[in-house]
Amino acid sequence: MTEADLPVVEMHPYRWGNPDRAVHLPDAVLTALRHLGATPTPPPPEPEQIPLPDSRLPEPVRAALESVVGPAHVSTAHQDRLRHTRGFSTPDLLRLRSGDAVDAPDAVLFPADRDEVLEVLRICSMHRVAVVPYGGGTSVVGGLAPVRDGFAGVVTLDLRRMDQLVALDPESRTATLQAGTRTPRAEALLTTHGFTLGHFPQSYEGGTIGGYAATRSSGQSSAGYGRFDEMVVGLTLATPRGLLRVGTAPKSAAGPDLRQLILGSEGSFGVITDVTVRVRPVPETRVYEGWRFPDFVTGTAAVRRLAQDGPRPTVLRLSDEAETAVNLADPSQALSPAPGGCLAICGYEGDAEEVALRRERAAAVLTAAGGESLGSGPGEAWRVGRFAAPYLRDPLLDAGAFVETLETATFWSGLHRLREAVTTALTSTLSAAGTPPLVLCHISHVYETGASLYFTVVCAQGADPIGQWRQAKAAATTAIVEAGGTVTHHHAVGRDHLDGFAREVGPLGIAALRAVKQAYDPHGILNPGVLVG
Amino acid sequence: MTEADLPVVEMHPYRWGNPDRAVHLPDAVLTALRHLGATPTPPPPEPEQIPLPDSRLPEPVRAALESVVGPAHVSTAHQDRLRHTRGFSTPDLLRLRSGDAVDAPDAVLFPADRDEVLEVLRICSMHRVAVVPYGGGTSVVGGLAPVRDGFAGVVTLDLRRMDQLVALDPESRTATLQAGTRTPRAEALLTTHGFTLGHFPQSYEGGTIGGYAATRSSGQSSAGYGRFDEMVVGLTLATPRGLLRVGTAPKSAAGPDLRQLILGSEGSFGVITDVTVRVRPVPETRVYEGWRFPDFVTGTAAVRRLAQDGPRPTVLRLSDEAETAVNLADPSQALSPAPGGCLAICGYEGDAEEVALRRERAAAVLTAAGGESLGSGPGEAWRVGRFAAPYLRDPLLDAGAFVETLETATFWSGLHRLREAVTTALTSTLSAAGTPPLVLCHISHVYETGASLYFTVVCAQGADPIGQWRQAKAAATTAIVEAGGTVTHHHAVGRDHLDGFAREVGPLGIAALRAVKQAYDPHGILNPGVLVG
Repeated sequence: MTEADLPVVEMHPYRWGNPDRAVHLPDAVLTALRHLGATPTPPPPEPEQIPLPDSRLPEPVRAALESVVGPAHVSTAHQDRLRHTRGFSTPDLLRLRSGDAVDAPDAVLFPADRDEVLEVLRICSMHRVAVVPYGGGTSVVGGLAPVRDGFAGVVTLDLRRMDQLVALDPESRTATLQAGTRTPRAEALLTTHGFTLGHFPQSYEGGTIGGYAATRSSGQSSAGYGRFDEMVVGLTLATPRGLLRVGTAPKSAAGPDLRQLILGSEGSFGVITDVTVRVRPVPETRVYEGWRFPDFVTGTAAVRRLAQDGPRPTVLRLSDEAETAVNLADPSQALSPAPGGCLAICGYEGDAEEVALRRERAAAVLTAAGGESLGSGPGEAWRVGRFAAPYLRDPLLDAGAFVETLETATFWSGLHRLREAVTTALTSTLSAAGTPPLVLCHISHVYETGASLYFTVVCAQGADPIGQWRQAKAAATTAIVEAGGTVTHHHAVGRDHLDGFAREVGPLGIAALRAVKQAYDPHGILNPGVLVG
Repeated sequence: MTEADLPVVEMHPYRWGNPDRAVHLPDAVLTALRHLGATPTPPPPEPEQIPLPDSRLPEPVRAALESVVGPAHVSTAHQDRLRHTRGFSTPDLLRLRSGDAVDAPDAVLFPADRDEVLEVLRICSMHRVAVVPYGGGTSVVGGLAPVRDGFAGVVTLDLRRMDQLVALDPESRTATLQAGTRTPRAEALLTTHGFTLGHFPQSYEGGTIGGYAATRSSGQSSAGYGRFDEMVVGLTLATPRGLLRVGTAPKSAAGPDLRQLILGSEGSFGVITDVTVRVRPVPETRVYEGWRFPDFVTGTAAVRRLAQDGPRPTVLRLSDEAETAVNLADPSQALSPAPGGCLAICGYEGDAEEVALRRERAAAVLTAAGGESLGSGPGEAWRVGRFAAPYLRDPLLDAGAFVETLETATFWSGLHRLREAVTTALTSTLSAAGTPPLVLCHISHVYETGASLYFTVVCAQGADPIGQWRQAKAAATTAIVEAGGTVTHHHAVGRDHLDGFAREVGPLGIAALRAVKQAYDPHGILNPGVLVG
């Protein structure tokens, strides 16, 4: 099975992904959780039992919106409103699991095309109704529950009906996909023509093309295929003031790169309706293998060497000692005896001869840097389980554990200092709260000048798990900003990173974004409170 | 001699580069020019004979500026004002050669550091004095002669004293250079530490780090080292409202990439004071070679193949039949018998083993695509003469020829249509004006999804050469916009591309840029009339 064979599924409001792929925790994990102090929580309410606030969309607005998208595509049904209440951060899930759906939108709209989106924005702008652009709903940073004060209502604009491959240019290797296209469908559409996008984030099963653009996503194959923002050569943004179309050439000196102003705008400047991406031929060969390094510092130097001097694998990641020991790559094997040290995964995709050559040369570099080949076993295990980790969270929450992730990036020379600062901040804060955590870390995205760090935190749920995390996250964010890292490498700002983001880019950084928002969205209806506060 | 050995020279107001490197036209070229109808022009006035308008900087402003940068660094000397009158487009040169220096600034300031720049902007903002940020003065798009109406004066801010390597991080491979550092000096500073920037535009001898950032420059080695905007990992912008510092990580999802909003802002949002760039080790080996293709279509397919599937040379360019015949690579050999067909230059830089491997694999691809190796002769000739072409313009103008360049880019599938449209527009316009041109073209920058086209136009100077070019350029711009290309791939917008740029990005594109300008430069003193009109 390849990624293109994964079905597009409707997500449960607070459980990840395809129910057929739900996982159970091995006994070793349950034992370890008891040692952390976790005790199973009462079963959460079924979705239909979770109460919603009354829909307060004014009747004339509803009528106007129905006249645009059709009555069948303006929903106030319980299941639709509940499903669009928030995103998929652990606090989001905990709130729904506790029966709190106060952020549910007043209605969910399902527009058919760009013109309908434009018209919806016009109407909502006129009536001061807040609009939440919605792709796959996988935000983990509070990007889908805007500020409501001062608005006549909140509607969510779910783009799922806009899921077509609009254009394919095989000579230029570009494809234009509508924003609501989920990745499995995008891959299936492209594979028919012999192409792949090569974007494989952990949210692959849920994420959409527009969402990736709006949040500057980066997938697990970024070493080879690039980040999503590097794949985008053009896009269309629908705003209350009309359409912006950008991308006349791969690169240009015609002013600032406006694509890069829209990428990462998180629905606060407009609704991305279609994206033109660079595609590549479906690779002839894929080889994934594991490498063991004695410690994280040695392993980091090795992956830095490949990132800077090549040859560059398609996938390149390195777990620290703790993450290697926990062995999250294969949930069924989690906490089983690991080989010790630090596990790196190197994947190679391309034509057979080129892959063989690249792999051989990379192997020489890794060996010289202190690595020991573990063969394709760990590599294949990782590849097959690459989208499995998010499925672990639900049974962990059921078992009374708190589990969440955060990520950052910086330049190579500051990477270990940053890792240490974040680990210390998380450990000291959560320990002081009486829930000492396990903090795991890996490098998952490498650049010539630096890399990302992805942290997974596991501890027991205290009496107030959301408050407990808020404190820990705030401490981690401060540690990141003080260490000179970015507050998010591929999860976006949302509402959760507002404060850290403002500290990172300073008042003039925020001023530029507010100025653009004011120009495109003068009534401030688009995802209010997200990105620019 | 390497690029790092080239001296930093003071340019003549209307002659390019280092006087020691001035070239003379071979007889074959002079004969060809006579066939185009060119007759030698009268010698232009010596710089000291060119009259300047009175300096109208109000005395209190001058005193305030002197108190900031020191009296020795506020110049109203004839030579300083004349040298900063405009840039280096052919119309700019023709105007100076005809004795027209009405755009001379009222004074030229030479600030020592970022704090002085900030204070100058504060004073000029308060007194409504327009400010022209000035690096190497090599603009070919009218980026250095702003609108003067409504301002109490115009001062040029020449950053030449800000030319230091501020920081070097060998582990992360980043270097922070002050904006006024010219490329030869930057390379010399970096080479001391074993690094190179790898940015080699034709303006190499004159261009500065800040200028490259402000205009989104792209150098001749972009296939291997990337465009300048891809090298930048951080920068500082001084604005009338204070400092913006961006770049905490190689890549981030913390909002839009603000670096990409400042890159290409052409001094209209603020003054870039320092830039942190990715650097690379000085290559062990450099090999440049020539390839011949029977025609441009075949050659384009071959370079596309390398750009899309690799291996990617460090330098990759392809001249069309006309440019190959004219043989501009080596001025002393211009118009000498060429091998026919289309000449491609492929350069490889890196460690010896890697270069050998890459070159061998690329050779197989090029041969399979219909290329014939010409060996390293044409490659070395091109490499040695890579900065020579701009020197040709001065004797061509002396000989009564008009010569100018323009460039664009688009996706591969539209490249030949775009080339045809531009060639037709230039040829028909100039022929109708009684000066039929020679139009040469090459591909000099390649991407997976497309490439740039660089046109050189030679014809006789008519009675009104500036007006004659204005018409031709307008027709070419319309052809570019209608063919879906970008109005400039690496020369920026300036004032010359204002109209085409507005058509390319549309009213919402311009609205975003105007909003940012208003936020950073509320009195509109920064390079007024450039970029956003």
